[in-house]
Amino acid sequence: MTFHSMWAELLPVGRSSASGGYRRFAWTGADLDCRAWFRQQAEARGLTYEADRNGNQWAWLGDPARGDAVVTGSHLDSVPDGGAFDGPLGVVSSFAALDELRGRGAELTRPLGIVNFGDEEGARFGLACVGSRLTAGQLTVEDAHRLTDGDGTTLPRAMEAAGYDPDAIGPDPERLARIGAFVELHVEQGRALDLSGDRVGIASAIWPHGRWRFDFRGEANHAGTTRLADRRDPMLSYAETVLAARREAELAGAVATFGKIAVEPNGVNAIPSLVRGWLDSRAPEQHTLDTVIGGIEKAARAYAQEHGVDLAVVRESFTPVVEFDHALRDELARILGTDADLKVPVLGTGAGHDAGILSGSIPTAMLFVRNPTGVSHSPAESATEDDCVAGVLALADVLEGLACT
Amino acid sequence: MTFHSMWAELLPVGRSSASGGYRRFAWTGADLDCRAWFRQQAEARGLTYEADRNGNQWAWLGDPARGDAVVTGSHLDSVPDGGAFDGPLGVVSSFAALDELRGRGAELTRPLGIVNFGDEEGARFGLACVGSRLTAGQLTVEDAHRLTDGDGTTLPRAMEAAGYDPDAIGPDPERLARIGAFVELHVEQGRALDLSGDRVGIASAIWPHGRWRFDFRGEANHAGTTRLADRRDPMLSYAETVLAARREAELAGAVATFGKIAVEPNGVNAIPSLVRGWLDSRAPEQHTLDTVIGGIEKAARAYAQEHGVDLAVVRESFTPVVEFDHALRDELARILGTDADLKVPVLGTGAGHDAGILSGSIPTAMLFVRNPTGVSHSPAESATEDDCVAGVLALADVLEGLACT
Repeated sequence: MTFHSMWAELLPVGRSSASGGYRRFAWTGADLDCRAWFRQQAEARGLTYEADRNGNQWAWLGDPARGDAVVTGSHLDSVPDGGAFDGPLGVVSSFAALDELRGRGAELTRPLGIVNFGDEEGARFGLACVGSRLTAGQLTVEDAHRLTDGDGTTLPRAMEAAGYDPDAIGPDPERLARIGAFVELHVEQGRALDLSGDRVGIASAIWPHGRWRFDFRGEANHAGTTRLADRRDPMLSYAETVLAARREAELAGAVATFGKIAVEPNGVNAIPSLVRGWLDSRAPEQHTLDTVIGGIEKAARAYAQEHGVDLAVVRESFTPVVEFDHALRDELARILGTDADLKVPVLGTGAGHDAGILSGSIPTAMLFVRNPTGVSHSPAESATEDDCVAGVLALADVLEGLACT
Repeated sequence: MTFHSMWAELLPVGRSSASGGYRRFAWTGADLDCRAWFRQQAEARGLTYEADRNGNQWAWLGDPARGDAVVTGSHLDSVPDGGAFDGPLGVVSSFAALDELRGRGAELTRPLGIVNFGDEEGARFGLACVGSRLTAGQLTVEDAHRLTDGDGTTLPRAMEAAGYDPDAIGPDPERLARIGAFVELHVEQGRALDLSGDRVGIASAIWPHGRWRFDFRGEANHAGTTRLADRRDPMLSYAETVLAARREAELAGAVATFGKIAVEPNGVNAIPSLVRGWLDSRAPEQHTLDTVIGGIEKAARAYAQEHGVDLAVVRESFTPVVEFDHALRDELARILGTDADLKVPVLGTGAGHDAGILSGSIPTAMLFVRNPTGVSHSPAESATEDDCVAGVLALADVLEGLACT
């Protein structure tokens, strides 16, 4: 099965005809359809299929019990109204790269695995990379059991409904110990490759990043009858803080975004009692991120005080910088550097990935494929078929270089 | 039954123990409990009870068919997490004022009615004053039939479930033609009486007011990987517009509020594709309101252009200035002016009321009772029992002056 035909098979699954975006949320029907497709691809190639205790799917060529396996793959779930490439490009390219290796007649000297990590985006239960976090012991079983979606369904009940045993979830160090290298191919989520004119890049590091919740509490009141001087309107402090976040990020060469908001009572004729805004911020260096967050919080406190509004800031999550394994990164650069047609720049990224989670346990690397729009988490995310094929060939070269020598 | 005991009976109905606020939405269980209470109060006093075709409740002393009736009353429904006084104070005071008149042995020369207008707040179906608008022919039957709540239930289905015939709704000019004067008593929704030190005031006019929807459309993108320069983030234009609205209102002596927002996709790590903000604005004069809205829209368009964001502004509703009947207002001032202990100032208000709707059809007036917090549409709304009793006595004086001479 070619890259093209695999891609065409997955394309309609979980696509919203209204938005043109994907809604493949963990353990929902669309996700289960994607998982069935993964198993079918594995079995059609005569690979050994297994689903692990944390809901990740694996397809093996060679016996992983031999150890020092080379694994590639990504995820198949999506954010709300996400694009087609974020995740699936890595999984489809893995199968296509294996086909390419077989076409070359390459002889494997190490076991080769393809993986689909469960619930990478966290769109349903609010926490990203649940499958890889559980496996790496970066999420406790207790915390995982408490994860609940917007309808009140818990992760254990959702896994159970999909035929999994939620009592079996937990760390899986034996599985990780068998893996000598993990390489994740991913569509680029920015325009660096487009700007440099390259098809494929290698990841250097994932920027440190975090999420902060800003709760501005004022006083609910009637929008028509309350004099401006008598108001304690938290929307004003929120608005000023949104602008402060942009200014601080610009000054520091970081990114800062208020993309989610919850307002109470959220009525047209009501001054809000509460405006809750979530800040996502990332920077190349830890100290830069600290400066940005410190500046935003200081400005927010001053604005809140000016409007008689109470402010609480809670850091909801934080991930320090992830440096990918230097030896593996250099090995990838060496393998791909032998192809004279392909210049392969090394890039940092602001996005989290399963590869970032696993990099704490095993040598890990990432390949990026050019995204001409630079758009991500949106139907406008894209990659040309030529660039996708270049990505498949690069991944095949890497797997051949790592597992066949 | 005293004011105090009637008040105590209504107090627990529809009260949220979590917020301390009221959720008496039209045609829900809490509203039906309030309506049952109204009927019981009417019947306990030997008044003739009827519910009209539009779901408004009436209690009559004397035969309204004689014409030139004097009517008082208000509403019993609430905004989300509203206070106890907005609406119920007027209805409870009406029954208490009737009891006071009877205690004085006053002889009625005109029919006297007490009314509870249905769905004044519009909290459930998004349109305020549905009962009085339908009666006055200011809302078409077709538009009323299309009103739908957040769960997809239409107004006709909600009325039907409460035992009403939704096919019967519509204008009721015969009913209005029998009414010679309508007086609505209401808790003040600002601090004018508190600042002037008066217990009771008379309404002069309702400010012109309107609601505008601002749709800022940008481009959904990944909050971690999209360079600031590549963003089309509609949250920034929204934030700048919130601050512009405050500035323009301050300059003009008007009020302007962004209290409701909807964001898509509203994800922590997603630059929004759409930020939709609702502006509520009111001013003492039409030309002032025009200046404020013009200024806000101009600023919003400049900000949107700067960020590569598309802006659409839709006026969702608009109510011109309502001048209450001058003769009736002067009559109220004359009646209440004979009480040397009561100075009764005449005030404008920024809030809409059933009295404002009816003022296009019949002579209409309003009395306000002091609200020391000035807060409205919130559990912090208040009035002392002494002031409530002063309001009851003022209303009794007005009814005696109008209906017993």
